[in-house]
Amino acid sequence: MKEGKYEHAPMVVIKRLPRYYRYLGELVEHKVERISSQSLADMMGISASQLRQDLNHFGEFGQQGYGYRVEDLYQEIGRIIGLEREYNMVIVGAGNLGQALANYPNFSKRGFTLKGVFDINPKLIGLRLRDNEIMDIDKLEEFIRTNEVSIVIITVPKEAAQEVADRMVRAGIKAIWNFAPVDINVDPSVILVNEHLADRLMVISFRLQELGFYD
Amino acid sequence: MKEGKYEHAPMVVIKRLPRYYRYLGELVEHKVERISSQSLADMMGISASQLRQDLNHFGEFGQQGYGYRVEDLYQEIGRIIGLEREYNMVIVGAGNLGQALANYPNFSKRGFTLKGVFDINPKLIGLRLRDNEIMDIDKLEEFIRTNEVSIVIITVPKEAAQEVADRMVRAGIKAIWNFAPVDINVDPSVILVNEHLADRLMVISFRLQELGFYD
Repeated sequence: MKEGKYEHAPMVVIKRLPRYYRYLGELVEHKVERISSQSLADMMGISASQLRQDLNHFGEFGQQGYGYRVEDLYQEIGRIIGLEREYNMVIVGAGNLGQALANYPNFSKRGFTLKGVFDINPKLIGLRLRDNEIMDIDKLEEFIRTNEVSIVIITVPKEAAQEVADRMVRAGIKAIWNFAPVDINVDPSVILVNEHLADRLMVISFRLQELGFYD
Repeated sequence: MKEGKYEHAPMVVIKRLPRYYRYLGELVEHKVERISSQSLADMMGISASQLRQDLNHFGEFGQQGYGYRVEDLYQEIGRIIGLEREYNMVIVGAGNLGQALANYPNFSKRGFTLKGVFDINPKLIGLRLRDNEIMDIDKLEEFIRTNEVSIVIITVPKEAAQEVADRMVRAGIKAIWNFAPVDINVDPSVILVNEHLADRLMVISFRLQELGFYD
């Protein structure tokens, strides 16, 4: 794929692609062969024009009067997202959250392979998490290089998150998904997603108020 | 607050409110007193017109040629989100993810108070997680009523998620945040957020491709 092929696509639209992919995957599972843009949009709670506009950023899909071939659109969106590739990941921080993510079933299903889990705590090092043994964080840099790891999930305490991120960047990691409750900063050439779990609660509190539960 | 006061605000804008709130909170911490819409927009990686358009959904903020009073806008957005209230939560499922969320520091900071953690596993019942003892799921309904719990976080295995959700709805819960990797369905009068962690990895894989890492 050429660099920046979809660089005109706004981030907000890109963030919707996994959702399209999930809904289409369900339709495929239910053996639905074709669907109109209106029906797909209804399922997803958006307007049909929004749906068409979103997809137009990535190519021409569907036919007037016919709609979309579900399987084709599913495959195509998977390809746009980059799911025909396999991505190697590591988790740094083998506490509860790291262990939970190591066992999360939907990552490997999408082609994201967990290659290793690391921690600094000698009591955890050597323990097994399903297919992975918890390794000493000192071995992290070498591991990343020899295992072609491109994504690191950071689940260390917030005090340690920036240092871990810096080490990872020096070791050549390409993307960081940070769960430590602190915004870390890295060179803009590295893809960084800071996970803000409390944001979701705030959306819930907004909606609780809007629905008048707290008059 | 009147019901549906901001019902014209699109969900995509509502989802950005916590982010505005976080950035403004950082400015408050750094004792910044005022900021132009351009500077705030730059910090957040959006355009100034997007920022003004977003905020216009909720009222009139800032002054031409002066910008925003940081503390005022911070307080105001907190009020719009509903953060002047306290919300009681429970977690159902005391595995790794439930335990991680029970210890997540940023929830209580925002006024979301964890009142209890529940599980079905006799080996876990009675154990303490910081301020909470893990309780038997059989006591859940009564607990929700007597403790005025409005939000439930579901971290049970996916096979059990729908049943737990149904029980919670019958017990009068108002909002569900579901981490089980399955979409659950509830009456539309209940606020439901299905957490799709794999979606974030898909956005990362899209961006890895776009940046040409995999040519």
